[in-house]
Amino acid sequence: MITPAVDIATRVYNHAWKIDPIIRSLIDTDFYKLLMCQSVFRNRPDVNVTFSLINRTPSVRLAELIDEGELREQLDHVRDLSLTRGESTWLRGNTFYGKRQMFRPDFMEFLEGLRLPPYILEKRDGQYELTFEGPWPEVMLWEIPALAILMELRSRAVLKGMGRFELQVLYARAMTRLWEKIETLRQLDGLRIADFGTRRRHSFLWQDWCVQAMQEGLGEASQGGAFTGTSNCLIAMRRDIEAIGTNAHELPMVYAALTDSDAALRQAPYRVLADWHEEHDGNLRVMLPDTYGTRGFLNGAPDWLAGWTGIRIDSGDPVATAEYAIRWWQSRGEDPREKLVIFSDGLDVAEIAMLHARFNGRVKVSFGWGTLLTNDFRGLVQGDGLAPFSLVCKAVAANGRPTVKLSDNPEKATGPADLIAHYRKVFDVGPQERRALAV
Amino acid sequence: MITPAVDIATRVYNHAWKIDPIIRSLIDTDFYKLLMCQSVFRNRPDVNVTFSLINRTPSVRLAELIDEGELREQLDHVRDLSLTRGESTWLRGNTFYGKRQMFRPDFMEFLEGLRLPPYILEKRDGQYELTFEGPWPEVMLWEIPALAILMELRSRAVLKGMGRFELQVLYARAMTRLWEKIETLRQLDGLRIADFGTRRRHSFLWQDWCVQAMQEGLGEASQGGAFTGTSNCLIAMRRDIEAIGTNAHELPMVYAALTDSDAALRQAPYRVLADWHEEHDGNLRVMLPDTYGTRGFLNGAPDWLAGWTGIRIDSGDPVATAEYAIRWWQSRGEDPREKLVIFSDGLDVAEIAMLHARFNGRVKVSFGWGTLLTNDFRGLVQGDGLAPFSLVCKAVAANGRPTVKLSDNPEKATGPADLIAHYRKVFDVGPQERRALAV
Repeated sequence: MITPAVDIATRVYNHAWKIDPIIRSLIDTDFYKLLMCQSVFRNRPDVNVTFSLINRTPSVRLAELIDEGELREQLDHVRDLSLTRGESTWLRGNTFYGKRQMFRPDFMEFLEGLRLPPYILEKRDGQYELTFEGPWPEVMLWEIPALAILMELRSRAVLKGMGRFELQVLYARAMTRLWEKIETLRQLDGLRIADFGTRRRHSFLWQDWCVQAMQEGLGEASQGGAFTGTSNCLIAMRRDIEAIGTNAHELPMVYAALTDSDAALRQAPYRVLADWHEEHDGNLRVMLPDTYGTRGFLNGAPDWLAGWTGIRIDSGDPVATAEYAIRWWQSRGEDPREKLVIFSDGLDVAEIAMLHARFNGRVKVSFGWGTLLTNDFRGLVQGDGLAPFSLVCKAVAANGRPTVKLSDNPEKATGPADLIAHYRKVFDVGPQERRALAV
Repeated sequence: MITPAVDIATRVYNHAWKIDPIIRSLIDTDFYKLLMCQSVFRNRPDVNVTFSLINRTPSVRLAELIDEGELREQLDHVRDLSLTRGESTWLRGNTFYGKRQMFRPDFMEFLEGLRLPPYILEKRDGQYELTFEGPWPEVMLWEIPALAILMELRSRAVLKGMGRFELQVLYARAMTRLWEKIETLRQLDGLRIADFGTRRRHSFLWQDWCVQAMQEGLGEASQGGAFTGTSNCLIAMRRDIEAIGTNAHELPMVYAALTDSDAALRQAPYRVLADWHEEHDGNLRVMLPDTYGTRGFLNGAPDWLAGWTGIRIDSGDPVATAEYAIRWWQSRGEDPREKLVIFSDGLDVAEIAMLHARFNGRVKVSFGWGTLLTNDFRGLVQGDGLAPFSLVCKAVAANGRPTVKLSDNPEKATGPADLIAHYRKVFDVGPQERRALAV
């Protein structure tokens, strides 16, 4: 006997009546956040970091859509959360990438005692300025819940006032759309794809539905299917599927901000991965090379990095970058066919199919499908008020020094303009192609 | 706080595991069955009638799709049902068409004591032969549950083996389709439309969903909307909406079969309505003239019938028939603008819009929307295995004499060929247009 699936439309309808917490668990977050947190807890526990919310789609005026009181209630609720016994057991006892006890006992103790630090919320120019400041291993865990809360409050604001059957049909249409995507993906021989859609999901229940649809529609990788897992720990735990993820830009950004010379700055991204190298092997040795430009990063990389399992491509032209990585591995005497290339930047089905056709077999291809998996409601309400938008929450300062991210797309660069210019010089970043931000 | 809507896909999925009764209440039937039952109980309680299931779409081989054991279980379950206290209270206390105590105390006592009589089930040539024989007021109540059971068992048979999310998406598509129909109907100024879809519904839960979607999408007639109610008593009771219906072909068919002369046969349809006239007034005085040909019926009708509230058009060319009725009223000195014309034959949105445009204002137009409201899954599964089909359950004999129905479409005629020929002569039915049966 299967437990009844939650009726999403009814739940949304009920939001008009009562408070319904968006984040109900500290592990309703991306798996790589916990991996990075453990690394930071070991290597840089005392760095003071500031995370800030940045809405890269200013036309979506969040402070006009979302009630400040409701936002505070949701954020306050997250501060009340702590790791439950079951969550702790799952983290301590589970096998991740075939490895037991990925999380060390000292880190688990820290996590079990953790409450998220305070937030600072202000309104400016139709937007919320939401900032988190504190010890890096603590504040870094605000990123995903903060994003998910804002995304879902925005969904709720747009849906408020819709009738119950109008809502059912809205979700019916979104389900149909996703299922058609999955039916297309099912045609791709040898596909491997994971859910990376926590941060910009339409809602928690919707992400949960999407993951289950992927599970059934594509089959689980452990049983010969294409679906490799989800980045969301809570859903992975509840649905008994693989939690997926490695590391992200915040590590090189903070490491870089803390350096005192151009030479040290230039080495910062490798320093991050040297720390990572010590802790992890196998599928967790996946580099994210684009923080200060992929080409420069690969050109200057030490040989031990060429021995890593793979690379994640998260900005810029994915074809050109993957081709560059293949040539780079070949130049270092590595066989690209043994290497993993994870595409994760603003993907949807057509691009997944194109990249799969081009690279499958030449490298081991995998996809991290985010916003357009868990939040594709484009065109489904009047005024397209549910279209996804580009909201991020980034480390903007470390020990009082501003951080910088360049990426392979200048549209994704963050940091003070003069520092961006300085970083571009230090990392020898040439002209970059400007690419519109899908999400 | 709203109670959560049932997740239909999950329920269907669960059918693989346990018995799930299709008919759970004696009033999960059409309202007009109860009205007619009361009339029969008063006027012809001792007639012995045989009802038989007839599948007018022989390509749907029901006996190959549906397990006999499952069918027997469902039919046996109906025989265990009796009127609950709440159902009795609702029937006794409710207002129908503004009238209290529509059901007389002696009839309610009969109904409260009623258990449905036995059934005879055989398999022949890939079809089920399902027959009910007994006192007319008892066997007549088998028609709707028998049809609904076979329709839903067929749905379940086709859906068995589908994955849970495949099912969700199937229902998502069907919901989207219905909502688009409702959005089209919403444009029609002054529309009045009811659910007549019990007998050939996809399933009970689906009909319930469709009714609620109509309720929300069109608004209730009592509040200025277009949705006038449902023929289904159980749904009307639970959703607190109007139960709708008047009378059907079985009355003239049985009355006719019992006559002993051509003169009496010719008068039988009017005799039915004379009995009805004594019992009911207002909105219940709606004639169904097509049993033995609409034109002959109207030409020979007594003048008191021209004073009735309206007419239901259930076969043949609806435009021609409605025009004929308008001319008939005019010839009898009646103002057609005061008359109700209910269209109820195989309707879908395009035809509803066409008939509404043509007749609204010239008469009071109303629609009874059946199969393509509650069972439009055309094209949604491979092989179109869920397409609706034309299943009926008809009175085939009365006191051992075969019944005959001609209707305005020879495709809908039932009865022995020689008797059909005789009836055509007695009722002076000329050439008839053959129309394909939509459903």
